[in-house]
Amino acid sequence: MDIKAVLHTIGALLVFIGCSFILPIIVSIVYHESDLLPFVWSLAVTVSVGFLLWKLTPSNHDIKIREGFGIVTFSWVALSAFGALPFFFCLDISFTDAFFETMSGFTTTGATIFPEVESLPHGLLFWRSLTHWLGGMGIIVLSLAIMPMLGVGGMQLFKAEAPGPSVDKIKPRVQDTAKILWVVYLMLTVIEAILLRVVGMNWFDAICHTFGTMATGGFSTKNAGLMHYYDNVLVEYIIAVFMILAGINFALHYRFSRGRFSAYHQNSECRTYLGIITFTTVFLLFMTFGANFLTVEESFRKAIFQVASLLTTTGFHTADYEQWSVASQLLLTLLMFIGGCAGSTGGGIKVVRVDLTFRYLQTQFKRLVHPHAVTPVRFNNRPVSNDAIRDILGFVLVYVILFGVSSFLMSLLGLDLVTAVSTVISTLGNIGPGIGSVGPTENFAHIPVIGKWLLSFLMLAGRLEIFTVLIVFSKYMWRR
Amino acid sequence: MDIKAVLHTIGALLVFIGCSFILPIIVSIVYHESDLLPFVWSLAVTVSVGFLLWKLTPSNHDIKIREGFGIVTFSWVALSAFGALPFFFCLDISFTDAFFETMSGFTTTGATIFPEVESLPHGLLFWRSLTHWLGGMGIIVLSLAIMPMLGVGGMQLFKAEAPGPSVDKIKPRVQDTAKILWVVYLMLTVIEAILLRVVGMNWFDAICHTFGTMATGGFSTKNAGLMHYYDNVLVEYIIAVFMILAGINFALHYRFSRGRFSAYHQNSECRTYLGIITFTTVFLLFMTFGANFLTVEESFRKAIFQVASLLTTTGFHTADYEQWSVASQLLLTLLMFIGGCAGSTGGGIKVVRVDLTFRYLQTQFKRLVHPHAVTPVRFNNRPVSNDAIRDILGFVLVYVILFGVSSFLMSLLGLDLVTAVSTVISTLGNIGPGIGSVGPTENFAHIPVIGKWLLSFLMLAGRLEIFTVLIVFSKYMWRR
Repeated sequence: MDIKAVLHTIGALLVFIGCSFILPIIVSIVYHESDLLPFVWSLAVTVSVGFLLWKLTPSNHDIKIREGFGIVTFSWVALSAFGALPFFFCLDISFTDAFFETMSGFTTTGATIFPEVESLPHGLLFWRSLTHWLGGMGIIVLSLAIMPMLGVGGMQLFKAEAPGPSVDKIKPRVQDTAKILWVVYLMLTVIEAILLRVVGMNWFDAICHTFGTMATGGFSTKNAGLMHYYDNVLVEYIIAVFMILAGINFALHYRFSRGRFSAYHQNSECRTYLGIITFTTVFLLFMTFGANFLTVEESFRKAIFQVASLLTTTGFHTADYEQWSVASQLLLTLLMFIGGCAGSTGGGIKVVRVDLTFRYLQTQFKRLVHPHAVTPVRFNNRPVSNDAIRDILGFVLVYVILFGVSSFLMSLLGLDLVTAVSTVISTLGNIGPGIGSVGPTENFAHIPVIGKWLLSFLMLAGRLEIFTVLIVFSKYMWRR
Repeated sequence: MDIKAVLHTIGALLVFIGCSFILPIIVSIVYHESDLLPFVWSLAVTVSVGFLLWKLTPSNHDIKIREGFGIVTFSWVALSAFGALPFFFCLDISFTDAFFETMSGFTTTGATIFPEVESLPHGLLFWRSLTHWLGGMGIIVLSLAIMPMLGVGGMQLFKAEAPGPSVDKIKPRVQDTAKILWVVYLMLTVIEAILLRVVGMNWFDAICHTFGTMATGGFSTKNAGLMHYYDNVLVEYIIAVFMILAGINFALHYRFSRGRFSAYHQNSECRTYLGIITFTTVFLLFMTFGANFLTVEESFRKAIFQVASLLTTTGFHTADYEQWSVASQLLLTLLMFIGGCAGSTGGGIKVVRVDLTFRYLQTQFKRLVHPHAVTPVRFNNRPVSNDAIRDILGFVLVYVILFGVSSFLMSLLGLDLVTAVSTVISTLGNIGPGIGSVGPTENFAHIPVIGKWLLSFLMLAGRLEIFTVLIVFSKYMWRR
């Protein structure tokens, strides 16, 4: 791997993220609060380091596959380290906690170490939500423009899916695709923020919660999260709808916006995704009506919100689902593994992989009875290659294995079983709150320091399709 | 599927199993107990039905792949139904309970519905343990002679592994392989029984516990299980060693007995299997020494026994591991998923599949960096085909999915989370006791009736490599 080429790109990204501190600085000035100076310092340090890195490394470098992996993984780490500076400078917390919170932001996880947030200055709260939004922006481009080229976990399937011109050169294609997708992302963001303002949130809360929704992140500006708005039914419905939208492949939103109104319906993954939401919502409606809620409307609203939140791995909650039946909780847990669609801001295994795994298993029965029959698995009416199927099965397995091994490691730190398992699934899946002592009404402050670093690693691995992160520990990355 | 051909073979097997009632009848006569008549009746019914089935169906049938799946799955169900008759005739229990107990026996699971067993007549206890031994006998032949030909879950890998002449005709090959393997199985059984008698068990208990060990079953003749012999260190060591032997591919035992003393060492799967035992034993030794046990020897003995018992999916216990640390319990739970070697009587996913999954993931890193490099996964120094790898990954996934879905279904019956998850893993993995309310000191009597049938299904699915059972629900099995 050409380290200088990697550092050059990371330098440029640091300058960009340093400049983005200007937004919370404006917020800080508006609210006349104590976080102005920490942000100015953070901006100065980040832009200086970024500029130096960029300037001291040659620009005529050659980005190949190895450098691609290096840039993606290390830039996420570097951005989290520098993005943590405002928390570290402004508050009396350890760098571990600041890093955990920022990694949780950029990876759109939404796990927090703050027992309460309303006492934080507005600039800091704004930055916290902005990390979600910027992370989501990165993920959309990563999953539709970069991952398909790196071929991670079957993502080669999406080579032809991204909008933009079909050229082979990486750079212009990534830039064009990025521009198109970001316009869609920005439009949806603006619409949601306006809607939330209209139904009664103030601008600050509307924008911050929109960032949390569109990135499927989950940070809130209220101590009680969205429970704060428990008497505002419209807030709940709006956020539920936009979480569902954020969990859909953004290339489909783009096509829809260009007048191809059948885009969602024609896509296998999207159909499966909406099918899962419908089925589980109806199931939970029946399970909670009477037992937890008094009206059908309330049961429906709570069901669809919680389903959308956990399936898209956002992590907002408008009900304490730990009070629901064991079957309901297990169903919600299974949703956490599935996650959103590929090309969305959602985390988890991704609907397409779960879908293709089941399709493969179906063909397996035919193959067993007729060993010589040709039985391709089909996706969007095209046959999927055996190699892609094998890579997808391998991805799902590595996800499950990482889940099992990490749960074991967390339990070694002395956590009880439910907390160990729950912290792992909620960080690996980029969800945020889990169950047990990191449940929807709790936080991650009490996790031991080593545990916080392990969980930060899992957030990164889960966000970057696992292999992208694990591969930097492989000898193939480093030897010539 | 040619149903008559399937019924013809099942008829023959029923006659065989009916005749095997003679053994518990002898025990019953020796002990002058009340279970004599129920056994005579069971023998009469089973042999009559079997003979009629055999006689009324044509014998010049053609056994192809579909009939192969049908025979394997339905014969296991039929044998369990008729094997349950003595329990049903002799005791005041439901047919569900009798069937559950017998299925648990034949599938070498060892989950029991009896709160205590010492009050049962000796003939019945002997039959209970004999179902283990006969089931183990069936499994060895199934996994080394039949499954490789049916090509289930990557078992085609073992086409060349079985001893015996390399002929293509199914019948003579299966018969020859069976004879060779059964001699090995019988020899190990005789040796263990004699050793247990020598160190102080009476003949009856020695033989019954040997049946439970060699089949990796886990039924005991004592209320406290092997805790009954807590002051007999040698019993613990002998059973630990024979459990470990029972978890090894019996083709290797055969080769070893023919003078190829490097057979174990040369086999990748066996090396991995012994490696896992060594590593986890040492880990648990450190975790329990001081915390749970006072001497290193005791910690070692308890560690290796529990590891051997849960990895080979036997389910005997000589310590209440629910008192151990959370990390130790999670490690033991991970072992339950792995299981024994292919071609052994052990259940679970099988060491070879877990091993090849990890080997595949390793090559995946090389492939990501060098997309055009040829990176075969190797097993026993031979490259493994991509199709076999894909089938193995698919098997592991279907195992995990069946685990998740069944846990959800069990929780729908009102079981608490730990019990729901634990009953599923312990039956799907053919282990027996789990944790929670079906822990080592508990039983399955309190599980609702529907749950017992679901768990019986899981025992069967786990024992017959899942696909063999699921495929009978597939349209491909039934349409012409």
